[in-house]
Amino acid sequence: MKTTVARDPVTVTIDTEGPFTIIGEKINPTGRKKLQAAIKEKNYDYVVSLAVAQVEAGAEILDVNVGVPGIDEVATIKDVIGVVADAVDVPLCIDSPSHEAVAAALSVCPGRPLVNSVNGEETSMQAILPLVKEYDVPVIGLTLDEDGIPEDGPARFAVARKIIERADSLGIPIENIIIDPLVLTVGADSNAARVTLDTIGLVTEEYGVNINLGASNVSFGLPDRHTLNQAFLGLGMGAGASCAITDAAKLAPTIKAADLLRGRDPHGMRYIKYYRAHSPKDDG
Amino acid sequence: MKTTVARDPVTVTIDTEGPFTIIGEKINPTGRKKLQAAIKEKNYDYVVSLAVAQVEAGAEILDVNVGVPGIDEVATIKDVIGVVADAVDVPLCIDSPSHEAVAAALSVCPGRPLVNSVNGEETSMQAILPLVKEYDVPVIGLTLDEDGIPEDGPARFAVARKIIERADSLGIPIENIIIDPLVLTVGADSNAARVTLDTIGLVTEEYGVNINLGASNVSFGLPDRHTLNQAFLGLGMGAGASCAITDAAKLAPTIKAADLLRGRDPHGMRYIKYYRAHSPKDDG
Repeated sequence: MKTTVARDPVTVTIDTEGPFTIIGEKINPTGRKKLQAAIKEKNYDYVVSLAVAQVEAGAEILDVNVGVPGIDEVATIKDVIGVVADAVDVPLCIDSPSHEAVAAALSVCPGRPLVNSVNGEETSMQAILPLVKEYDVPVIGLTLDEDGIPEDGPARFAVARKIIERADSLGIPIENIIIDPLVLTVGADSNAARVTLDTIGLVTEEYGVNINLGASNVSFGLPDRHTLNQAFLGLGMGAGASCAITDAAKLAPTIKAADLLRGRDPHGMRYIKYYRAHSPKDDG
Repeated sequence: MKTTVARDPVTVTIDTEGPFTIIGEKINPTGRKKLQAAIKEKNYDYVVSLAVAQVEAGAEILDVNVGVPGIDEVATIKDVIGVVADAVDVPLCIDSPSHEAVAAALSVCPGRPLVNSVNGEETSMQAILPLVKEYDVPVIGLTLDEDGIPEDGPARFAVARKIIERADSLGIPIENIIIDPLVLTVGADSNAARVTLDTIGLVTEEYGVNINLGASNVSFGLPDRHTLNQAFLGLGMGAGASCAITDAAKLAPTIKAADLLRGRDPHGMRYIKYYRAHSPKDDG
């Protein structure tokens, strides 16, 4: 299945049968004090530097989140979308749980952005899905609802089904729904990633939709996080994930490697091209 | 399915439902001039140092191959099995295509070793399988035959079927057959790993047997081999592989990470224990 986001002249196709798509994650102030301060102070040079670095590192879409407590999110997300859109050429991903912020961002965002996110709560579906319909843009559906994040794969699948069916009832085509099965850290529950992988399998088998992986939460609180994040990407891609909101600078090499190994990089051209552009030293 | 190898008092269970088993690969002179010279000169101190290092790095079984052109392999493998068995406590994997060398090694090897390997050639099956039957030991079955290594998954599956059915006709229980779907480098054919992953899926679905991954060939000739090898392990484990002949020092961290992520490491005890024993620096 193909989900497209675009920004003239670039079209990015998130494709269950194609290479994996990297959505750069760094423009998100959650847990990042320097970025929080920069957004509060409208110091957008720092935001621009993060955006440019993610795209240079291989981000094909850029996630933009301005969720800092105490700011006017509606005004700020419009500002930041404008600044980031000026700085880089890639399509953007509008990241907010707020209906007002998403609406404001959609009104100014160039091209065909991705919306991150809707979830299975009635209030979320009622607020976000009509916007997605109105602007004809794809949206990431998180598998949580009024009861929180379900503890097993079948229950998360049920939330995915609810979102997909509600979207369908509004006339939103299924290819505009990307399911994010959520992942909690295995540091708190060693079954956490297994549940996510199970959910990917169930959703993929039933609907064949694109799946997004929030890849770096999984290792929170554990040592050697990079190895865990790399391994999770391999397992997630094998299970059927087709994109991730992740730090391109850290995980693009693993993603390019896995694409080559999955037979989704004819003659290894993308792998070699990425390597040449980013890693002049050869350990081979 | 459970395949056991053992050496009093240790039993190692290769288990399709359990954590991944690491078979240390370094005692193999192919392409290693220093080891070739050491084996020729009966300088077994170097062999012992490799064996000890692999076990310290996490190898649960140790592969022993003495294939150096121009030596008496039968006499040498008996020597080396004895030396290695004195040096480390883990069960061994007897690695030779020669019926005579395998027979000699089995006659002196303590415990219940693994035999590496039989393949789908008539001469191989006729020579190796009766030994495996006689000693009641498990064997790795390579998916190649008189026509070479098949180019697609279904054809490799057919070779696996031939080996499994022949073994069955001799009264060898299916759990004593571990299939190795072989992997060639994606540097020569970018579809090479995909074929291996496809074969794992086909063999797993039909027979549910344990699958061995020869994990480091896949990246031959390419830059950043370690990232490719790590990603291949993640994809292979996700597809159903349950053991690998690999360099424990390089790939044990990825394997422990993937086991935790697959929900096969309750409370992350094995991951944390491995990390504490091998990587005192925390990047988390």
